[in-house]
Amino acid sequence: MQVAYTPDEITAIVAPQRSAGATTEKVRDIASLSTARAGDLSFLGNPKYRNEVAASAASVILVPQDYAGEPQANQLFLFVDNPSVALARICARIEQLLWPRPAAGVHPTAFVAPGAKVDPRATVGPLCVVEEGANVGAGSVLQASVFLGRNGRVGENCWVQPGGIIGAECVLQNRVRLQPGVVVGSDGFGYEFVKGRHEKVPQIGIVIIEDDVEIGANSTLDRARFSRTVIGEGTKIDNLVQVGHNVIIGKHCILCAQVGISGSTTLEDYVVLGGQAGVGGHITLGKGTKAGGQTGIAFDTPPGSYLNGTPATPYMTERRLQVLHQKLPDLFKRVEYLEQKLK
Amino acid sequence: MQVAYTPDEITAIVAPQRSAGATTEKVRDIASLSTARAGDLSFLGNPKYRNEVAASAASVILVPQDYAGEPQANQLFLFVDNPSVALARICARIEQLLWPRPAAGVHPTAFVAPGAKVDPRATVGPLCVVEEGANVGAGSVLQASVFLGRNGRVGENCWVQPGGIIGAECVLQNRVRLQPGVVVGSDGFGYEFVKGRHEKVPQIGIVIIEDDVEIGANSTLDRARFSRTVIGEGTKIDNLVQVGHNVIIGKHCILCAQVGISGSTTLEDYVVLGGQAGVGGHITLGKGTKAGGQTGIAFDTPPGSYLNGTPATPYMTERRLQVLHQKLPDLFKRVEYLEQKLK
Amino acid sequence: MQVAYTPDEITAIVAPQRSAGATTEKVRDIASLSTARAGDLSFLGNPKYRNEVAASAASVILVPQDYAGEPQANQLFLFVDNPSVALARICARIEQLLWPRPAAGVHPTAFVAPGAKVDPRATVGPLCVVEEGANVGAGSVLQASVFLGRNGRVGENCWVQPGGIIGAECVLQNRVRLQPGVVVGSDGFGYEFVKGRHEKVPQIGIVIIEDDVEIGANSTLDRARFSRTVIGEGTKIDNLVQVGHNVIIGKHCILCAQVGISGSTTLEDYVVLGGQAGVGGHITLGKGTKAGGQTGIAFDTPPGSYLNGTPATPYMTERRLQVLHQKLPDLFKRVEYLEQKLK
Repeated sequence: MQVAYTPDEITAIVAPQRSAGATTEKVRDIASLSTARAGDLSFLGNPKYRNEVAASAASVILVPQDYAGEPQANQLFLFVDNPSVALARICARIEQLLWPRPAAGVHPTAFVAPGAKVDPRATVGPLCVVEEGANVGAGSVLQASVFLGRNGRVGENCWVQPGGIIGAECVLQNRVRLQPGVVVGSDGFGYEFVKGRHEKVPQIGIVIIEDDVEIGANSTLDRARFSRTVIGEGTKIDNLVQVGHNVIIGKHCILCAQVGISGSTTLEDYVVLGGQAGVGGHITLGKGTKAGGQTGIAFDTPPGSYLNGTPATPYMTERRLQVLHQKLPDLFKRVEYLEQKLK
Repeated sequence: MQVAYTPDEITAIVAPQRSAGATTEKVRDIASLSTARAGDLSFLGNPKYRNEVAASAASVILVPQDYAGEPQANQLFLFVDNPSVALARICARIEQLLWPRPAAGVHPTAFVAPGAKVDPRATVGPLCVVEEGANVGAGSVLQASVFLGRNGRVGENCWVQPGGIIGAECVLQNRVRLQPGVVVGSDGFGYEFVKGRHEKVPQIGIVIIEDDVEIGANSTLDRARFSRTVIGEGTKIDNLVQVGHNVIIGKHCILCAQVGISGSTTLEDYVVLGGQAGVGGHITLGKGTKAGGQTGIAFDTPPGSYLNGTPATPYMTERRLQVLHQKLPDLFKRVEYLEQKLK
Repeated sequence: MQVAYTPDEITAIVAPQRSAGATTEKVRDIASLSTARAGDLSFLGNPKYRNEVAASAASVILVPQDYAGEPQANQLFLFVDNPSVALARICARIEQLLWPRPAAGVHPTAFVAPGAKVDPRATVGPLCVVEEGANVGAGSVLQASVFLGRNGRVGENCWVQPGGIIGAECVLQNRVRLQPGVVVGSDGFGYEFVKGRHEKVPQIGIVIIEDDVEIGANSTLDRARFSRTVIGEGTKIDNLVQVGHNVIIGKHCILCAQVGISGSTTLEDYVVLGGQAGVGGHITLGKGTKAGGQTGIAFDTPPGSYLNGTPATPYMTERRLQVLHQKLPDLFKRVEYLEQKLK
């Protein structure tokens, strides 16, 4: 993010208890204490980095009230109760610059079908398509080149980034954020094998994405065969994740990048899956189940499970098995030695 | 899918042999016997669920002719030869509502190059781009925001969903369905390492997608270095699948989500790959090879292979090895015991 | 690629030292010696295929100066110093046909914000969106349906294929190629867990893609939390790859399809990762580290490492462990035998 705040502007945003030193640099970026250069703002958010402040080249540093050091030449210290909170205030300001709220209304290059309803406080950006019967709620933004299919519904204060595709009849509740290129409501992968050919099973269900969900770039969520695929309130999904048809994901789950969930599986609340983990179909992961990256889960898991590896194994067991696996060469030698001895 | 069929409309679609009971509810969704609520239609498709009928809250239930029970209050039973077939008839009707055939013609917001040919019975939807020399056959639909590159060809009765990208010279034969965001004809990943840099090897081949293929959302199919990458007739590919350059996929294969096939590999007919499976380059998977999820295949496989694990291992062997792997702690103890005894 | 070059046209492109034979066929495709048919051009690029020339059905064959055989009837041999170089010359010609340089200028269906700057020698194709403050440099092409966000910068001679999305403030330096559907600058995946809910951490950094980088279809690159995510000069990334926030990728790396790199990880120069490999967060892969397909790397690696498996293990060790793992059934029998003997 290329910004340029004067020291006075930063001071106004942060409202520090006091300050020390001064700088002629404008703040153009944020960096950690050790990597900061002139023009950067940095912060002492964790006491263990206290020793790095003295050597930091940052032009402005947010420090806690009890920090004892002195600024270098051309360096400004701002003393605050909580440097992390002060930093968050600056970040929020920058965020508004990055993504200023677009004006409400339908862009002249968008195509909105006559029977669609766009709330006057919503934004439909350039080159979006909104099909018949679709509905865009107050405060929601379809940023650009977004597709909202027939009878699809976007609730209030959602933000659909460029290239998002929301299929017919699918529902985003409120404050849902879709990163670019997300597909909601692709057909489930269902076929019957008849006379040597795969015949398509109609996929006529929908996807419902509940309040405060965020979905990462180019992830894909299949519509249900019938009834619904559900992403529960507050769940966060990273990039390139696949969610199969009729999957029910609970509230406040975390799915890291490239995870895949097969059809008709249920994740209870607070499940956390590491990157590239795969989950088989028609199973249930109990509340709070955690799994490491690349884990392959084929069976139900009890609540609170912590798994790793393929096939998924309780974490401590898996670690132990890995250690023993590495010792196989030694074990083979030991057995050979015993065999020699007993010959 | 939000629908609302009166009991009479459902009865007209299903044409049952006889009925029992009645309901004042409209049918608004389809659900399994155990999860159905008022307003749902359900069905007894598998005899093992026979006991669930009596307790089902569905408003309408499709039951086989020989089903002996009685409907509850405000519940309608429709007796049919085959409840699954009757259900399929209802699904097909709903499918038409979900995706009504769009009117033929080129949408005024689409850009079709002067030298492209669009059959008068084809549909080019809003904000599509069709480049010079491209061809769209009768009955085919480019739904919205689809890109069809220079000299690309879409046969008859294809359906390309929103955001699909078909590169220059690539070919979809007939009745091909692309889910949203599919990329056909990205460059193969080929470089030569010259003086410390990777120099691009031109990728000038094409992709041919044969009849009745379906490809899942955001999947990517690379064009050949030269000649062609081929997806054989009737093959079905799920979401987020990667197909490398010069790959030849046979007929009626199944590739589940997030599978990756490296360049110049051949899959013979009826190969089935589970989710997240990876296949190395320049190998051949024999006819009917099956592999479980996350399998990693680096070598040719004989026809009819059934593999699991990385490195890919015959299924029964892999299962046995997994069991023994779990017993490693015990084995180490047993060897230690023997060592003690022989000291 | 459907082309049609007369033998004379091919001869003119190749400029051979001498020729032998003649053909009436036009060259319509390129194929290997063993698979070529009439109308194909083939080449003897590797001496080990020398025996395949005599039986090849290609109409035109590029052979080295010292090749001794005679063409068949209706077949043309072109003798050149280096058949691979001669082939590359033909491929380059075909490449120009496939992707002719589009005329400079902004397509009338594109939307370019008033405050954006497009160099008069750049091309902004149909249905692109270029937001306020964005910049497109000389010779660069946004092919079609490309989104370039607020203050985004595309340098000189870049090529962004259809559906590419470049987020606000992100930077492509020069000669960068994005295959279709790439997302640059999606939000990093960062949340804080507060009172049972995941609260979003603002992601206000950018992505910088240095000179001569190529990125594969539907890959996703997250913007930094603050500061920048960097893809180093000359690095090549395949399809469906995920790069997390604040990742720093060095120069001339190779990331094969479906690789995932977690946040804040550094890859030094010349790292090579096989397909579906996963790399954990906050680690450093030393210069020239190589890892096989599906490898899972959770720890720092020294320069020149060659790894395989999950957890990542030095290649030769991993191979040995795999062999021993396959011998587990035998080992269990041997231990049982010893136990019997000692009873």
